[in-house]
Amino acid sequence: MWHLLYPMRTFLIVSGQENEINVMAADWLTYLSTKPPIIGVSIHPAHYTHGLIKKYKEFVISVPTINMLRDVLIAGRKSGSEKLKKMSVTFIPSKKVKTPSIKEATANIECKVIEEKSYGNYAFFAAEIVNFVQNEEAFKNNQPDVKLGFMAHLAPGTNKFVVFDDKIYEIPTREL
Amino acid sequence: MWHLLYPMRTFLIVSGQENEINVMAADWLTYLSTKPPIIGVSIHPAHYTHGLIKKYKEFVISVPTINMLRDVLIAGRKSGSEKLKKMSVTFIPSKKVKTPSIKEATANIECKVIEEKSYGNYAFFAAEIVNFVQNEEAFKNNQPDVKLGFMAHLAPGTNKFVVFDDKIYEIPTREL
Repeated sequence: MWHLLYPMRTFLIVSGQENEINVMAADWLTYLSTKPPIIGVSIHPAHYTHGLIKKYKEFVISVPTINMLRDVLIAGRKSGSEKLKKMSVTFIPSKKVKTPSIKEATANIECKVIEEKSYGNYAFFAAEIVNFVQNEEAFKNNQPDVKLGFMAHLAPGTNKFVVFDDKIYEIPTREL
Repeated sequence: MWHLLYPMRTFLIVSGQENEINVMAADWLTYLSTKPPIIGVSIHPAHYTHGLIKKYKEFVISVPTINMLRDVLIAGRKSGSEKLKKMSVTFIPSKKVKTPSIKEATANIECKVIEEKSYGNYAFFAAEIVNFVQNEEAFKNNQPDVKLGFMAHLAPGTNKFVVFDDKIYEIPTREL
């Protein structure tokens, strides 16, 4: 049944500080609240990222485009010291957390954990968004420019991704 | 900052039973666990849907395609008795919950609430998936057929939606 909500947007989650940093690919995250801004992410406890988030109580969500397909797949498929060596992302300092951001991403969302819960076999971190940095061209007028190729995972367990078509469908509220 | 995770997939949430049924449009939901299968959805407590889910402890997530754009927008923009009168969806019985499913949707995911939490100004329902019904053509080999036009909300607060391009991007794991 895991394909039913797919294609799902894919993001990178950066965790850790200084010389223990990791990057994972994640599809299972959502907004939880607007006031304060809270985001929730579901992570399997076997992942190295889980331990790093537990330890440092913070993480960064980086928004990749299809140009970063190889890095996203390495983040999702590889592990251990091999992973970061193979990835070609550039870490840059974040503003409000010590976990770094990714320069190549179209946006970096800095999060501080407010709660960890367990649902079934996964951990769920709720985290307040304490800062964000965006590529202004990618999000002009608070609207993503889909021509940039925001990635969605086609189906769980696969290496397949899709992007959005740039046609916009709209019906004004007065015509509903 | 709400545009940063957009475009986000849009779903319909059916709640209630018999003569008090409602349908809302929701972008803020995700999977939470695989064993057991748990899904989480963030709903503002001011919504009628919130009260219905609290009362009946169940809901159905229906997966719309762009053919249902008008219904999705009515579900998102209208309220009260006017809403269901304007919508053209067909309710059909679900299998494991009393809340109905939507015939025109490509999939209906039947959920029973296991927990309600509060994050900031929103409620968060975690619910076990107790049954699902899918259009077999839309999800052949457990892979969504993006040609069907699965919808994503382009930006929060807008009536704008996009669908996926059908080009698939893939790098085999051995080439990473």
